Amino acid sequence: MHIVIIGGGGMLGRKLALALGRRGEIGGRAISQMALADIVGPAIPEASFPVTAHRLDITDRAAVDGLLADGADVIYHLAAIVSAQSESEFDLGMAVNLMGSINVFEAARALGTTPKLIFTSSIATYGGEIPEMIEDWTALNPQTSYGAQKAAAEMLLTDYSRKGFLDGRGLRLPTISIRPGKPNKAASSFMSSIFREPLQGREAICPVDPDYAHAYLSPRRCVENLIIAAEVEAEALGMNRCFALPGRTHLIGDMVEDMRRVAGDAVAGLIRWEPDPEIQKIVLGWKAHFNPAKALALGFVRDDSFEDNIRFFLEDDIEG
Amino acid sequence: MHIVIIGGGGMLGRKLALALGRRGEIGGRAISQMALADIVGPAIPEASFPVTAHRLDITDRAAVDGLLADGADVIYHLAAIVSAQSESEFDLGMAVNLMGSINVFEAARALGTTPKLIFTSSIATYGGEIPEMIEDWTALNPQTSYGAQKAAAEMLLTDYSRKGFLDGRGLRLPTISIRPGKPNKAASSFMSSIFREPLQGREAICPVDPDYAHAYLSPRRCVENLIIAAEVEAEALGMNRCFALPGRTHLIGDMVEDMRRVAGDAVAGLIRWEPDPEIQKIVLGWKAHFNPAKALALGFVRDDSFEDNIRFFLEDDIEG
Repeated sequence: MHIVIIGGGGMLGRKLALALGRRGEIGGRAISQMALADIVGPAIPEASFPVTAHRLDITDRAAVDGLLADGADVIYHLAAIVSAQSESEFDLGMAVNLMGSINVFEAARALGTTPKLIFTSSIATYGGEIPEMIEDWTALNPQTSYGAQKAAAEMLLTDYSRKGFLDGRGLRLPTISIRPGKPNKAASSFMSSIFREPLQGREAICPVDPDYAHAYLSPRRCVENLIIAAEVEAEALGMNRCFALPGRTHLIGDMVEDMRRVAGDAVAGLIRWEPDPEIQKIVLGWKAHFNPAKALALGFVRDDSFEDNIRFFLEDDIEG
Repeated sequence: MHIVIIGGGGMLGRKLALALGRRGEIGGRAISQMALADIVGPAIPEASFPVTAHRLDITDRAAVDGLLADGADVIYHLAAIVSAQSESEFDLGMAVNLMGSINVFEAARALGTTPKLIFTSSIATYGGEIPEMIEDWTALNPQTSYGAQKAAAEMLLTDYSRKGFLDGRGLRLPTISIRPGKPNKAASSFMSSIFREPLQGREAICPVDPDYAHAYLSPRRCVENLIIAAEVEAEALGMNRCFALPGRTHLIGDMVEDMRRVAGDAVAGLIRWEPDPEIQKIVLGWKAHFNPAKALALGFVRDDSFEDNIRFFLEDDIEG
């Protein structure tokens, strides 16, 4: 089985590549080769099969075709311009998140083999005047350009699947926390950094109040879900190929208390509470409460508590 | 006020141009000029202000910019490749319905004046596994490429509005019936022709059963709604610029009985009932029951009964 990961240099892409390198199979079928592509050439993980790394700009359709020249059984399309950057650089977000995604869908279609295509969308596609509890049939009404571009691509992913051009699976990711590495340009970046930095002895800024509610998924469970997404039978997906992944909804204040229990007062004290209207303008437009019935029925997984998220970070990602 | 109608040669575009020519104003502001554009040059209606006709292919961004070179206060974007044709010519549908719409949105944005942009979407954006009654917050899950392309464009219209690039109003049209003129390549074409043709003494084919339920709006009320859409205050539109227009849901059999009452047995007898699996595959994926609360609150209108639709056709459109 030939795997391609577009966005293979990002946080999730690297973890997914590492996990697939260790497993050597998806759904009982052996992986024969894996190509990792990103705007900068991704690192190559250990694996029992050949892994190649590629520089790729998905706004260049010919380059995407070139990446898929050897065919592909499963394509992960994780590449995106994240929320705060898509807000400040609208045209770049359109070019990558919508037009780049169409390039990926078209290149997959051109293979003529109906490859599986796992696309990461976001719960940032929800917003606006909708009921408090989000069901699988709740309208997408994004209040960021990032969300709008993802939502538009979702509509196409389901249609390309209906037409048999590809076999799409679009996952609306909760905010991934605790992310390792450095802060990024996502408005949600603080939702990891206020834990990641203190757990490593550094200060971090929290731009929202302790009662801010939001839905989270750990990187570890997210990678498990990305693999499950390639294993689910197409017939089980029904008429909408895109749906919210299961997460857990927590208040920021409760999460900080979880960290205090695990790591102590001194660590929790490294958070500086400094409200930021620019960040709040974006994140207060996001929705917090989900009933991910479809994803749970399909076998997707979530963390049992935010303490899990902290434990997974300490086990998988802590530096030094 | 400078009006531009893209798709000004289509059935709705012609009726809208005619109505605006008669009114001479929108929302109390006088119309100073009107440009009609379509893939073939539209007819110019009588008006007390200058009206120009333009050939335009909206897949050509420079041509759209050229059309808007004199500026625009209100842009109607009605141009589309309809449902059955978008299904059989997928790439053409993508090029016109999605990429062409983006060209229109971008050209409007480039004006730098935040023009009003009225975009006709469709209730064909609904579908899939959703509750029987469609509310304003029900998910779009189109089961045609036409619907998917419209739904993707809707996501962008709301976002371009949120960004202040334009002042968008996206109307999900019920099926317009009774349409005058010739059958078109919409899968819904029969929903007009089974009335229009018999009312003019000609046979017509009904490809679905009498118990097929669907939502309708007359051309007359639809044109009224297109004008209301340019009059509604932006602030009243809330966080989603796109919503279902009010229609009335009828069974085909009941509509035929309405025609029998108005026009007699001989007319109703001109319908040949011949089930067509290809048409049914498309139209059975559409949804029939709507609660258009938002549109009604904003002042949009609908027909009181299907007899209205018949009467309006006889008054406005009957040939000879």
